[in-house]
Amino acid sequence: MTVIAKRSKLVTFINVFTVAPENQERLVGLLTQVTEGSVRHAAGFVSSSLHRSLDGTKVTMYAQWRTIEDYEAMRKDPTPAPFLREALTFAKFEPGMYEVVETFEPASG
Amino acid sequence: MTVIAKRSKLVTFINVFTVAPENQERLVGLLTQVTEGSVRHAAGFVSSSLHRSLDGTKVTMYAQWRTIEDYEAMRKDPTPAPFLREALTFAKFEPGMYEVVETFEPASG
Repeated sequence: MTVIAKRSKLVTFINVFTVAPENQERLVGLLTQVTEGSVRHAAGFVSSSLHRSLDGTKVTMYAQWRTIEDYEAMRKDPTPAPFLREALTFAKFEPGMYEVVETFEPASG
Repeated sequence: MTVIAKRSKLVTFINVFTVAPENQERLVGLLTQVTEGSVRHAAGFVSSSLHRSLDGTKVTMYAQWRTIEDYEAMRKDPTPAPFLREALTFAKFEPGMYEVVETFEPASG
């Protein structure tokens, strides 16, 4: 479970991969494998949630880390690197590093 | 607070706006205003969280709706429409409609 909240002091990565629909499942598999086997073991990893676009053309990872430095250390780790390199052979990668500005609840709730 | 969980049956919108850094604050203001005043009052709105990229070039809305039909009804509502049109005069909009595949916890947790 991922909880998004203002003032959490976490750093949020919203990384959007664009793929041909026939490769979406392969990319979901790769990202699942590298997160299960490697990324979630890294220091400072808080949570991540993997999303599949309904039109088949995107896969988006919403990830929370304690600090930017923790994330950068993971990216330099040789274990996940080959998975990410393989993903980039068939997917376009658009990274984003964010802070939460605000969360909104239903007016009725 | 937004909670991301597998098998939630919600539909997730991850909408990425790209802007010149000098317009990021203006876009955050517009999206806050339209969400507070209009979108969160719509039927089927579950939650949304607004994110500001640390490099100033992106604003991303992570939003959960009960159904696609609820979201589409909101997009046809004349109240929020002018805000979104104004945003598109100075921001590029890349929408995405998703389902959650998986969420990952820290290996140690």
